Amino acid sequence: MVGADVVFKCENFQKMGAFKMRGAANAILSLSNEERNRGVVTHSSGNFAQAVSLAAQKLDVKAYIVMPENAPQVKKNGVKTYNGEIIECESTPQARESTANKIKEQKGASFLHPSNQDEVIYGNSTAAIELLEECPELDVILTPVGGGGLIAGTALAAKYFSTKCQVIGGEPMEADDAYRSLVSGEIETNDSFHTIADGLRTHLGDRNFPIIKKHVDKIIRVEEHEIVEAMQIIWERMKIIIEPSCAVPFAAVLKNKEEFKNKKVGIILSGGNVDVKNLPF
Amino acid sequence: MVGADVVFKCENFQKMGAFKMRGAANAILSLSNEERNRGVVTHSSGNFAQAVSLAAQKLDVKAYIVMPENAPQVKKNGVKTYNGEIIECESTPQARESTANKIKEQKGASFLHPSNQDEVIYGNSTAAIELLEECPELDVILTPVGGGGLIAGTALAAKYFSTKCQVIGGEPMEADDAYRSLVSGEIETNDSFHTIADGLRTHLGDRNFPIIKKHVDKIIRVEEHEIVEAMQIIWERMKIIIEPSCAVPFAAVLKNKEEFKNKKVGIILSGGNVDVKNLPF
Repeated sequence: MVGADVVFKCENFQKMGAFKMRGAANAILSLSNEERNRGVVTHSSGNFAQAVSLAAQKLDVKAYIVMPENAPQVKKNGVKTYNGEIIECESTPQARESTANKIKEQKGASFLHPSNQDEVIYGNSTAAIELLEECPELDVILTPVGGGGLIAGTALAAKYFSTKCQVIGGEPMEADDAYRSLVSGEIETNDSFHTIADGLRTHLGDRNFPIIKKHVDKIIRVEEHEIVEAMQIIWERMKIIIEPSCAVPFAAVLKNKEEFKNKKVGIILSGGNVDVKNLPF
Repeated sequence: MVGADVVFKCENFQKMGAFKMRGAANAILSLSNEERNRGVVTHSSGNFAQAVSLAAQKLDVKAYIVMPENAPQVKKNGVKTYNGEIIECESTPQARESTANKIKEQKGASFLHPSNQDEVIYGNSTAAIELLEECPELDVILTPVGGGGLIAGTALAAKYFSTKCQVIGGEPMEADDAYRSLVSGEIETNDSFHTIADGLRTHLGDRNFPIIKKHVDKIIRVEEHEIVEAMQIIWERMKIIIEPSCAVPFAAVLKNKEEFKNKKVGIILSGGNVDVKNLPF
């Protein structure tokens, strides 16, 4: 279909359904025993909340998850399944931050950021390391770009463990802050997030952007219909469930077949947490 | 969830999306060179048509696929993808049989049956053989029961390659001919097929029923809503796409948890060919 040799790293098969498990686990493993005893805190209503809860549970660490009071019940249930303690707050970024800060102070808990923290980025890099161990001859690895934590980790891994492997990001045209950031050289933001790729409705951070700027070769932007088409192809042909954000790099490859022709291409499938009762096709 | 150690053999990951590839390939491999030169013929509008087309293509054999003229375009396309030659006929069992017979006579092609042929049954048995190679300690293997070709092959494999492994079938209450056949000791039929498990809307045959009678330990019947619930659990938790027929044995396990408690349970996931635009949930 692409005219290239394409392999997929299936992070949708992580226990909580996304690559976020890697960053969360590494961040907690990087804490001292004393720090672990005081627990960890994050504010997230998405995959990272479940990842922190599960990683903390496995390591016998207390996890405080700050969530907006109007977060979907299914996401709250996901956190509860892994014994995360939910602290509800108002649905504003300010309330989330101040609530997390309060827990940090009261409990001495360590704050974990979903994408803009070194230990999280290093944890994320293990997906690409494993991929390169299995397929050392890859010419390029693609990932989606949202908060920037996955592509930054991937870029570090590719530059360190391969002599030739490029790293390319896929990004929705409707939330192309990373593309514009690479053009301007500074962290740009989006005025709106009208993309189906809900996991990518966020911005780069000051820890991951310098890595991206230095090591990511380019970012390819795709339209909404291209994301949905790529997602459907993966569902139908590969028989695996991926979420819209996860389809973005494959959409980028389909859109630019000539560029990838005859190459060895690795795609990190970032996650599979999607409401099967509410699909875009 | 079950209180048992459950492993899955993912036949939905076969290239054409179902275990049928095994029987089709083995049946063609069992032909003499002379027979292969004359081609193969089957009448099927489902997974077996694609399996025969693909297996024949790989082995450089001509495949004639008899299909009712009103078969869905998507199924015709599947066959064409693998270079099967479609011969259309009226949409009656009689027309399908007589058309296939005509090709058999005219071309000297070998007829392949989707479930009631020894070589197809033996080919199907390789799924259970591989499963037992990986998990020799299984107490029981479950499969869906439709035409009987999969469970017959599975039962032969389990009785031959394990000293203790039971074989249990899952069957929709709405098409429980195999359950009733085991009770009466003769091949029973269904008056209707009001089940979502479209791959199981068929009957046992005279080649597979004796094997089933001798080697299958029991058949568990499940309701339609139990099939849909089991399917949704596998989609959501395992992030893989399976078709309704494929969910039937897992539904049987969920319905009879006490029976499987603390056991090592293998489930053959038969296939994943489902219209993602038309789901039961």
